Amino acid sequence: MKAFCFDVFGTVVDWRTGIAREATAFFDRHGLSACNPYDFADVWRRLYQPSMEDCRAGRRPFTKLDILHRENLDAALNACGIDPNDFQTTELDQLNHAWHRLDPWPDVIDGLTRLKAGYIIAPASNGNVSLLLDMAKRAGLPWDLILGAEVTQAYKPSAPAYTRMADLLDLHPNEICMVAAHNDDLQAARRCGLTTAFVPRVTEHGDGQSIDLYPSQEWDIIATDFNDLADKADY
Amino acid sequence: MKAFCFDVFGTVVDWRTGIAREATAFFDRHGLSACNPYDFADVWRRLYQPSMEDCRAGRRPFTKLDILHRENLDAALNACGIDPNDFQTTELDQLNHAWHRLDPWPDVIDGLTRLKAGYIIAPASNGNVSLLLDMAKRAGLPWDLILGAEVTQAYKPSAPAYTRMADLLDLHPNEICMVAAHNDDLQAARRCGLTTAFVPRVTEHGDGQSIDLYPSQEWDIIATDFNDLADKADY
Repeated sequence: MKAFCFDVFGTVVDWRTGIAREATAFFDRHGLSACNPYDFADVWRRLYQPSMEDCRAGRRPFTKLDILHRENLDAALNACGIDPNDFQTTELDQLNHAWHRLDPWPDVIDGLTRLKAGYIIAPASNGNVSLLLDMAKRAGLPWDLILGAEVTQAYKPSAPAYTRMADLLDLHPNEICMVAAHNDDLQAARRCGLTTAFVPRVTEHGDGQSIDLYPSQEWDIIATDFNDLADKADY
Repeated sequence: MKAFCFDVFGTVVDWRTGIAREATAFFDRHGLSACNPYDFADVWRRLYQPSMEDCRAGRRPFTKLDILHRENLDAALNACGIDPNDFQTTELDQLNHAWHRLDPWPDVIDGLTRLKAGYIIAPASNGNVSLLLDMAKRAGLPWDLILGAEVTQAYKPSAPAYTRMADLLDLHPNEICMVAAHNDDLQAARRCGLTTAFVPRVTEHGDGQSIDLYPSQEWDIIATDFNDLADKADY
């Protein structure tokens, strides 16, 4: 094993709490008390996969996530009964950048720092480079390099998102361990020959979470958090 | 200014000393005393620009630097009267990776570490991602991200090498300061609207160096080394 590559939204950062925090500030500023900020975060996030699917299926050229998120923001506001045309574009753009300002789970910085001493560590995310870079600078994520989706020009779980990453790193796929809290991400990575590590994040979707609580296959590593992953990496 | 992007070969690392060191070990191992390792380094390096020019001019598809270096290694050995067919491929491949194992100039780590606290720092190099990554891990270069030539699919001083970097960083070109010890790199960067910083490396080509001793234009910043650059960045 030479490199650990990480899913970001959900695995490294707690997107739901972060988006709800920024949505709360936005709703308060505009006296919008009817919309629950966690529900809003869930609605916004639910539009994520369908919007990437247009690119994966070739119905739309590869489009970076900041742009997809921005389109989905309008749709999410509408779905919550809020008209996006009531706000200045710059303010909506700023809210859209909430995805650049998400906080990592408490174990992340320590675990990544330990892993970095012996391995290459990088995000393997559908986020765009500037999103992942802003997030890393703000939170102190000690990545060796940033492999955003524009670099591979592919969205996970499409195979090129994994195989082009291996090409860039000049590694055999099995020298790369894909780390994710999502079984479907690991399934796609395994199909491309990558090593796999599952780290459950059982409150990613809130207290009532029903998916990805357990590994769906015998992944190569199963760890409780990033510190446990660092322990298990040094076998 | 949001980001400082650095030329690497010559500006960040002392390629000539590093290549000569590894060539010395190779020549010693094979009893090849006729070839001066510094001359060999110069010969190998002189083939660098012409090989990239084939890609820039469209005579050859974009080909990563590890491959160009490897072809040039055979040519450089031949030019020094050494037949590359006398050696195992794996040994030549290992010598080729000498470019992954170059040491930074003494001021680099301190200067980069200071700059990183206030700015994005990244290589803007013709090196490939794995080359720049190996170099950074070995030497402790604290890059925020690595922008290798495969990422922009262009070799400096072609304009897309600078403009695609700005696109990826989601910055206006003038928010990026290109740092180089080479006037022609800065000239091309300025033509693309980037801010420019000249840091002379007057022994890059050895004691008798005659080029790039002085700035050829009034660059936005002129610094004696990376610590001086960090001083001048915080104006």
